[in-house]
Amino acid sequence: MSWKRKDLLGLEELSREEMEEILSLARSYKEKAPGDELRGLRVANLFFEASTRTANSFKIAAWNLGAEVLDFSPETSSLKKGESLLDTARNIAAMGVRAMVVRHPSAGAPWMLARELPKVSVLNGGDGAHEHPTQAFLDMMTLIEARGSLDGVSVGIVGDIAHSRVARSDIWGMAKCGAKVYVCGPRTMMPPSLEGLPVEPVYDLDDLLPRLDAVIMLRIQLERQGRPLIPSLSEYAKAYGLNSERLKRAGDDIVIMHPGPTNRGVEITPEVADGPDPVILRQVENGVYVRMAALRLCTGAPS
Amino acid sequence: MSWKRKDLLGLEELSREEMEEILSLARSYKEKAPGDELRGLRVANLFFEASTRTANSFKIAAWNLGAEVLDFSPETSSLKKGESLLDTARNIAAMGVRAMVVRHPSAGAPWMLARELPKVSVLNGGDGAHEHPTQAFLDMMTLIEARGSLDGVSVGIVGDIAHSRVARSDIWGMAKCGAKVYVCGPRTMMPPSLEGLPVEPVYDLDDLLPRLDAVIMLRIQLERQGRPLIPSLSEYAKAYGLNSERLKRAGDDIVIMHPGPTNRGVEITPEVADGPDPVILRQVENGVYVRMAALRLCTGAPS
Amino acid sequence: MSWKRKDLLGLEELSREEMEEILSLARSYKEKAPGDELRGLRVANLFFEASTRTANSFKIAAWNLGAEVLDFSPETSSLKKGESLLDTARNIAAMGVRAMVVRHPSAGAPWMLARELPKVSVLNGGDGAHEHPTQAFLDMMTLIEARGSLDGVSVGIVGDIAHSRVARSDIWGMAKCGAKVYVCGPRTMMPPSLEGLPVEPVYDLDDLLPRLDAVIMLRIQLERQGRPLIPSLSEYAKAYGLNSERLKRAGDDIVIMHPGPTNRGVEITPEVADGPDPVILRQVENGVYVRMAALRLCTGAPS
Repeated sequence: MSWKRKDLLGLEELSREEMEEILSLARSYKEKAPGDELRGLRVANLFFEASTRTANSFKIAAWNLGAEVLDFSPETSSLKKGESLLDTARNIAAMGVRAMVVRHPSAGAPWMLARELPKVSVLNGGDGAHEHPTQAFLDMMTLIEARGSLDGVSVGIVGDIAHSRVARSDIWGMAKCGAKVYVCGPRTMMPPSLEGLPVEPVYDLDDLLPRLDAVIMLRIQLERQGRPLIPSLSEYAKAYGLNSERLKRAGDDIVIMHPGPTNRGVEITPEVADGPDPVILRQVENGVYVRMAALRLCTGAPS
Repeated sequence: MSWKRKDLLGLEELSREEMEEILSLARSYKEKAPGDELRGLRVANLFFEASTRTANSFKIAAWNLGAEVLDFSPETSSLKKGESLLDTARNIAAMGVRAMVVRHPSAGAPWMLARELPKVSVLNGGDGAHEHPTQAFLDMMTLIEARGSLDGVSVGIVGDIAHSRVARSDIWGMAKCGAKVYVCGPRTMMPPSLEGLPVEPVYDLDDLLPRLDAVIMLRIQLERQGRPLIPSLSEYAKAYGLNSERLKRAGDDIVIMHPGPTNRGVEITPEVADGPDPVILRQVENGVYVRMAALRLCTGAPS
Repeated sequence: MSWKRKDLLGLEELSREEMEEILSLARSYKEKAPGDELRGLRVANLFFEASTRTANSFKIAAWNLGAEVLDFSPETSSLKKGESLLDTARNIAAMGVRAMVVRHPSAGAPWMLARELPKVSVLNGGDGAHEHPTQAFLDMMTLIEARGSLDGVSVGIVGDIAHSRVARSDIWGMAKCGAKVYVCGPRTMMPPSLEGLPVEPVYDLDDLLPRLDAVIMLRIQLERQGRPLIPSLSEYAKAYGLNSERLKRAGDDIVIMHPGPTNRGVEITPEVADGPDPVILRQVENGVYVRMAALRLCTGAPS
């Protein structure tokens, strides 16, 4: 085990080798159920935004390794009494919790906790529009299963790139592992500057589709945008939604991914999302394995 | 083990032999604590209506067999983002959850999930005014403990029969196992047609009581009725409430049951509900055992 | 093991020997992790007021001993249907739960449950403004770690004594174990009669500080007071807040404690609360051990 970090915060700061170590351990967990490697470990799920997939997936991942999970709900906690996130986390740590999965609307919140809590492994479960590292790992794992590798693979990410933590983490992860990454969406949904990101912007999805091995359709997250960035959902669907008609322009074996939950009929039509062996559910399945690997590596139990 | 079903949905569709298999296994669990027969199994509790008894009873039942339980609360989940019940369930299944307990306001919801999720055992925790199978099994188990058998036993179900899933499941279960079942309540609370149900309606509780071996007093569920079906709670109590005075008309050893929570002073008075060894709490106790049996049989672990 | 009680309700009713038995077992748990002494035990957390520390600390304490914890949230339960606390508790007990941690706004609620549920261990997690026994035990354990003993130690409790269950339990516990206890705060925050309590009231914090070995700064609980007892928070902070300037009047090694969550800048300034090895977090850590001891002794598993 060469992994050295106590935290999993974002993919921008990880090397290709570190990413491959997580993916490799995730694959080994998928092939063979592990024992109780993290028995006695207590993990806290600190979710300050609604979540089905990520919170439950981390919980099952922890259980798979013999750990126990403390659900921390802001509604029933001392945050009601005005306690700060850091104070709450310090208290949970003092009780013997050694790993915390944090989802927070403020970009950077997991970094702050990781810095202030030297004995706790912090795993970023999504911070604002910044990063969502385990989502990127499950996307990468799923695409590698379909294509054998990320090297030379062309991936398009379609949707509201500017507000998407999934896009940001996917871009860093896939590009560092050798993929060519395109982002695609209306100009109002592109980040103000793409210079720092290893991507190529494309504004016409029909032009882009024939060049892709895989496409990641982002959820149109109406609830995150302060003001409307698109005239209407139906116009968005017309220009950027993935439907059977448009899919004819793509290669037959294009891999269609989505972080879920899907808005059927907006960014993706039901007949495209629900195939006989939908890749979208394989992403969810792989999410458990990458989270097991992340928990295991960051908490540093012996191999 | 002759049980063949992956799901427990309703008692209308079960044979007497199937019911007896569940009851027999439940009794054996009550006599002797089992080992961790379902260790590694993950169960999801999907409750779309408030519940103390059923959700916690299923959780303890699963724990008793070594399984773990994922609480799924609609408030903190992606249903908030507009995801459908089926999509949510598919995602939970993709994470490795193999059994789901579902309570839903729409009749039929558990059947839909059972059909769409071929690898998941669905246990109906109450669907609309339709069925509530584990409640019926715990009622049957409790009554058999008191009477030795259901064969030839006379059971009256009193209250809002039309809106009661408890009544529907009890009727099917008890009648198929040989009991004579009466339903009793004001005409506005009787289902529009009783023809398909193996019951006899009676409108006067005082006439009915002397004929009964057991009576099930239903909770008057004010929260489920769209419009008032009775002039007032006190008039209801006068005509259909079980009190000490009225109880004199019944046999000394009549078994008094209630699915809980009771409305003391409405359908039952406190002195009748709380005896020295209240049958109502024995029903709750037996609920854990029938749920253990249902989980065990439906998930099909080897005997 | 000489402990005879099935419940832990309040410190007023405990003898010094009983308190020392809990503290001694807590220390032994801190030195050496126990095995699964309470494996198979089910504990219910019944919290009718928001809590981060107490509810989670009890949960981790139970896990540390191999027990499982049922979270009981009033929001999703049958209390919504009008069920009483006692009925709810009786039902949970009927499912096989043998220990209940209860936090309730009504003083005396845990005593009522303890009396009505002869087979259940009831642990008071805070009842109104009455008692909060495990908080007192963790304060006592922390102070004994710092001072070797409570005998002859001078402790000041500062704040809203009248409304504080922490103060009440600390007073009984520390005084019975040999400490000299002072209470300090504005006259409006003192209980109407101090005659029954083994304490000496002092109204000027600057006079009191030089005499103390330890000070417990209570949280100003604005949410519990029906009407304002102080002109303003800043005036309170000026007269009764602990800051670096005021601290110069105290001995160098004064032990500064706080039950949390702190109102930084009101009863305590951040630079005083957050030292390099804050005693406040050691209190939280010790909370897990005293709760383990309380669970273990009350549920009476063999030594």
